[in-house]
Amino acid sequence: MARQRDLTAHQERISAATWSVLAEAGLPGLTLRAVAARAGCSTGLLLHTFPDKRALLLHARDLLHQRTAARADALEATGAAPEEVLRALLHQAVALGPEQHEEARVWIGFLAAALAEPELAERHVRGNRSFLRRTTRLLAACRLDWDPARCTRAATGLVALVEGLNVLAAADPATYSPDAQRHALDDALDRLVGAAGPVSPP
Amino acid sequence: MARQRDLTAHQERISAATWSVLAEAGLPGLTLRAVAARAGCSTGLLLHTFPDKRALLLHARDLLHQRTAARADALEATGAAPEEVLRALLHQAVALGPEQHEEARVWIGFLAAALAEPELAERHVRGNRSFLRRTTRLLAACRLDWDPARCTRAATGLVALVEGLNVLAAADPATYSPDAQRHALDDALDRLVGAAGPVSPP
Repeated sequence: MARQRDLTAHQERISAATWSVLAEAGLPGLTLRAVAARAGCSTGLLLHTFPDKRALLLHARDLLHQRTAARADALEATGAAPEEVLRALLHQAVALGPEQHEEARVWIGFLAAALAEPELAERHVRGNRSFLRRTTRLLAACRLDWDPARCTRAATGLVALVEGLNVLAAADPATYSPDAQRHALDDALDRLVGAAGPVSPP
Repeated sequence: MARQRDLTAHQERISAATWSVLAEAGLPGLTLRAVAARAGCSTGLLLHTFPDKRALLLHARDLLHQRTAARADALEATGAAPEEVLRALLHQAVALGPEQHEEARVWIGFLAAALAEPELAERHVRGNRSFLRRTTRLLAACRLDWDPARCTRAATGLVALVEGLNVLAAADPATYSPDAQRHALDDALDRLVGAAGPVSPP
């Protein structure tokens, strides 16, 4: 049991190190050596868990998906009206605070690597389509008067807006400030599902 | 004169090689060696023009800015109504054809590198703010009834939508198809400046 606990703690340290190196140093800074140093272990020990940089990237992408999916599931589990859930889902998905800025940086680093590697690209596509399906489903619950094609079309625009805000805020947080991001989302949502009161902070 | 012509031809080959290596192999594949091989010169000769990878990246980003700014200037020079120019500007800025897919890939590779290097980030920010200013100016010419803050706010949403479509289409052109991108842009524009006829192809 003690052995298993040590192993779990070791894996958690490596996982946290992978995430923070990618978020801080970007794709160019993500190396086995940098992650091992951050995790406080040898590169040899790191290699037992992650054989190469691609494995580190896939792990970071999976963590990102787990984090965002868990927040989204929690929002849906509140049983709030679909309009409120949809609005809260999109607001928590943009880069409003330090945690989400990290997520945006990880997302960009992974995407840049994925453009050159089909295995990584497949994981990106899977994660993004999952977000798009959820957005489409919630929008359809808000707009019972719309056919599925119209819901998909509008949800595609919403998801593109969210990811555009994320990538732009990662590099220029002054121009794409939290206020600017909230306004852009609310303008789009007000048109699609009607105006709402202020969203409670995530 | 012959000497100068040779030099110009050499620089153009290197410039084209930098662009295509970054567009095809992504940020991980952009190395001095790969660019020299593509340009058909030695790494030593390449180093006379570009001392390091950062210089290659800055060159590719400048090329991207020149290309997109030249297309945008040409649209504005037509003297068409601002509604038409704005619509055409945004349509030519998303990833509808092979050339724009290359541009989106270069944009993502540069951005991923920029997250780790302030000098690169400054160039990204300058390019994006230039696009945002142009979009804001055109939107203001369409909406004389809006104050500057409202124009900036709406233009921010449009630019984020454009760049979101670009990055998503670069990795998943099936989901973010040319039709899906056009619909998303037209939905947003119809709301801001009124519905228009179909945009002529860029």
